[in-house]
Order: sequence, then structure tokens, then C-alpha cells
Amino acid sequence: MSEEQQQQQEQQQQRRRAQRKDGHLVIIGGHEDRTREMEILKRFVELAGGPDANIVVITAASTIADEMWSIYDEAFGTLGVQRRSHLEVTSRQDANSEEFVRRVDAATGVFMTGGDQKRLLALIGGSALDTAMHVALKERGATIGGTSAGASAMSGHMLAQGRAEILPEKGSVSLGAGLGFLHRVVVDQHFSERQRLSRLLSVVAQNPYLQGIGIDEDTALVVDIGSGIEVLGQGAVTIVDGRGMLTNVAFIKDRDTPELIDVRLHLLPAGSSYRLPSSDDAPGKGLPPPLLDFLENVTKRNPIS
Amino acid sequence: MSEEQQQQQEQQQQRRRAQRKDGHLVIIGGHEDRTREMEILKRFVELAGGPDANIVVITAASTIADEMWSIYDEAFGTLGVQRRSHLEVTSRQDANSEEFVRRVDAATGVFMTGGDQKRLLALIGGSALDTAMHVALKERGATIGGTSAGASAMSGHMLAQGRAEILPEKGSVSLGAGLGFLHRVVVDQHFSERQRLSRLLSVVAQNPYLQGIGIDEDTALVVDIGSGIEVLGQGAVTIVDGRGMLTNVAFIKDRDTPELIDVRLHLLPAGSSYRLPSSDDAPGKGLPPPLLDFLENVTKRNPIS
Repeated sequence: MSEEQQQQQEQQQQRRRAQRKDGHLVIIGGHEDRTREMEILKRFVELAGGPDANIVVITAASTIADEMWSIYDEAFGTLGVQRRSHLEVTSRQDANSEEFVRRVDAATGVFMTGGDQKRLLALIGGSALDTAMHVALKERGATIGGTSAGASAMSGHMLAQGRAEILPEKGSVSLGAGLGFLHRVVVDQHFSERQRLSRLLSVVAQNPYLQGIGIDEDTALVVDIGSGIEVLGQGAVTIVDGRGMLTNVAFIKDRDTPELIDVRLHLLPAGSSYRLPSSDDAPGKGLPPPLLDFLENVTKRNPIS
Repeated sequence: MSEEQQQQQEQQQQRRRAQRKDGHLVIIGGHEDRTREMEILKRFVELAGGPDANIVVITAASTIADEMWSIYDEAFGTLGVQRRSHLEVTSRQDANSEEFVRRVDAATGVFMTGGDQKRLLALIGGSALDTAMHVALKERGATIGGTSAGASAMSGHMLAQGRAEILPEKGSVSLGAGLGFLHRVVVDQHFSERQRLSRLLSVVAQNPYLQGIGIDEDTALVVDIGSGIEVLGQGAVTIVDGRGMLTNVAFIKDRDTPELIDVRLHLLPAGSSYRLPSSDDAPGKGLPPPLLDFLENVTKRNPIS
């Protein structure tokens, strides 16, 4: 390209960086209240701008898209959101269409429903819509929400499928490529209700690079990019960190239970809230050191992939 | 007492210390195989002397003592044990009777069946029989086995009762005084099958002094006093260590879920085996450092309580 074009592009990038606003992720473990107090959906709406929010709902994970949309149409309506619409992606053509990208560019909140995260990724993964969601989160300060499959889809390595055995098993879980709003983590949902700790330990045993995040039903992990996290709702968020563990998983047969020594486990019930340390923190106050690395990891400002 | 008596007593104690042999604990998570391979019961018999073993079975935890005895009578018979008998404790008088103490003094193996650990302790806790079992383990090198309630009863702090909620809860578990063959631990059984991790985390959150040991069904933790441990059977042993954790449990209401940060979790499947480090270990070989404290704790030679 010409020198002039290069200059224009650099100036545009500088403007972008200058104007850039960090957004929020609202990662929900499924079965969130959609009819009563709606604590979690209410927070999603507040973060997206309250009455002025412009919310698009992506139902692509689900085979009953219309029913899903009508549920959230009613919930967000009850919460006072006028500008709400169904982004009905039925093909990759939809996910790459100018119209859908324009609608995401205009949105202050993008919500992904439950269903099957593999279906969701097959339809929107790597599309122009996917990129528009990253721009919304990382440059426009928009809020990206997802429940159940929509929660699992948020990490770069996505829990694609796996049985919830009573004990961890080598080879019982398979990962896929997710949307990558978070990296070096894997998200599981319906966590305590479906007793999925052994499944998450199976992932971490085989993939110690990933920190496991298990989110209970009607519970949300809210990530404020660049600054902190909060847990909302009825349950808890379980974090499993195997980076320092010792294991024989490399040497055992498929289906065997690995030996795991020194896995770090954190349980953050609703009400827990942490922010990255700042210079004005009193010593010993604020973030417990074992959570520092997790917090730095999930709140990290990632480039637009 | 007279000087002579004192001298005799000291000489006796010196002889005892000189002749003292360390025994084994076989701590079983319930539902061990009693009719087919009987891997765990076979090991119990081997440790108790094989065909020469003299095994007494304590059924005091159970309200169906005769049925319990007939099951183990047949199992130990099938395993070639001629000298086997039912130590039927129906009162604290029985537990303090010379006859029962004599029979334990003659035994090379003492096996405690399932039932209710509170019932077992109410009948034999602190009795002459209890002391005779400690002497058997710590001076005569006998083997003490227990399954289900008989396993829970082995620790000094005993899990008396508690609901297995899907999340840890303050005040949901109560402890009692156990037989004290092990200290600074609490044993739970039927562990993975009944999804009891949250219950064990509830104990550890409130009692960080105790390391939690969860034993699966048809699985045994074998403790070789003074030297090491081994896991046998079909499942695994889960160890939960909260001594270094941070928690708000002191400041929350009953029934609330505590925040737990930096709980250490170890999963030892059947086949795992560790011994205390010895001077002739090659550097980096042998015991993983995170297990050292646990191993030193459970293999410790405790005085006769």
C-alpha cells in the first residue's frame, strides 16, 4: 500500500488505541433466573448500558433458536431494554454477512444462549461476526454474555465434550477451539449440580497449561477486562490449577485414573470479588497471592484474534 | 508404688520398646469385594499373618451383627484363615471384659465392619478393648482393618455425620472422637460414589488442622506404620489439605458457602505407593515433596492413647 495509506492506517490504529475501552464478560453456568429477580441478567444489562443498551442475542448454539430468543426477548424486555434483537445465525454466510456485523458493531451487549458449543463454533468461529465481537469487547467496551454452551465457548480452548465420570480418566474429555475471549483457561458449566469436578480434573491433568473454571447454575463469573472479577448468583465458581502438579498421566493407559499431586483448588462463592492489585493497596490487603496469576490471566487485555 | 515395682515397670517398658513391632492399618472405603478376587481382604489377611493369622471381627458398628459376621466369616474362611472369630460387643461391659481383651491380645488382625461409627465408638471408645487394639497395632505389629464406618472410626477426629451438599457449607458436618489410630486427619468413605468432596471440604474449611482423606468404595489406604502407604482396589484416595488455605469461614453464617483459596488436592489411584524418604534414595526419586508431610503424619508412631 502507499505511504499515505500506511500513515492513515497507523493514525487510525493510534486513534483506536487512544479511544479503546475495556469491556466485560458475563460467563454464566446455565439455568440462570430469567423470570424472577434475574440478578445475573440484570447485571448483564447494567454493564451493557441499562435502558440505553442495545443487545443482540445469538442463539446459534441451539436447535430451538426461536424459543430461546422468545425467552430472552421477554427477560430483557422486562429489564427495560428497548433495543434488543435476535441475531439468528443459520449459516456461516450469515456469520460473515455485512448486516450481522453491522448489528454487532452497533451493539453494547452480545448474549450467547445455551445449546451445543460445538454447533455455535461451527457456525460463527473465525467469522466476521466473531471478529466484530472481539472488537466490541476490546475496543468499544461492550459486554459479552454467555450461558451454558455460551459460557464454554468463551475460552480459546473449549471443553467440546466429555463424560462426567466419578473419577478423572485419561482421554475422557476432548477440547475444541473456542471464541478465545479468555486464554489459558477452560470453562465448564452446570458444575456442582452435575458433579463435574472429576471431568475438569481430567482436562487439567492432560492440559496443565489450562486453568479449569467450573461455574455453577444460576451463577456468573463477571470479568472486568484489565481490572478484576466478581461472582454473582446462587452458587460458586471453582478454579482448578494444575500447573504445579505432579502426575503420571503421560504414562498411563486411556480410561485409567491419573495420579494427581498438588492440584490447587479455589472455591469462590457468589459475593466474592477481586481486583488486580494497585499501588494504593494497603500491604496485605486486596488480592490473595494464590489468585494473582489467575486474575492476571482472565483479566488480560488480549489482542483481537 | 515401691521402688522395686517401679524398676520392674521400667524394665518391662524397656523390653516392650525393644521388642516393639509396627503394625498396619487397612482403611477401606466400603463395599469391598467379599466374594470374588477379594484383593483388599486378601491383603488384610496377608498382613495379619496369612494362614497363621488370628482374626477377630468387631461388628459393633452394625445393628445386624450376626449377618455381618457371617459375611466376613465366609470371606476370611475362603482366604484360608482358620483362626477367625466374632468379637460381639453388645455393651461397654463387653468392651471392658477380660475375655475380650485377651482375645484381642491374641489376635494378629482386628477387623471393624461397617454400620454407624457413632455406635461403634459409643460401645468401644476408651474401653480396655480400645487400648488392646492400640497395643496390638503399636507393639505387636498387628493389622487393624476397617471398612466404611470402621474406616471413619480410625482417626482421632471422626466424621460423625454431615449432609453431602453439592457445595461446601459452614456448619453442615459434625465431628466426634474416634479411635485415634491416626491423628490430624479425618477419614470419609464411599467418597467418589457418594460425591462427598464438598462434605470433606466443609470439614477442612472449618478444621484446617485436619487433612481430609476420602476413600472410594472397594478401595483401601494401607498404612505401614513408620514407613509408608499404598492404595489398593478399584478406586482412588483423595487427600484435601487446607492448612495453607485462605478462607472467610470464620466470618460467614451457618449454611453459607465459604470462600476457599489455595486448597491442595491430591488424587492417589489404586497402585499408588509411597514410602518415607530414606538416606539411600537417589535425589529427586521417591516421595514427591507435597506428600511428605501427609506421609509423615499418617505413618507416625503415636503413643498408646
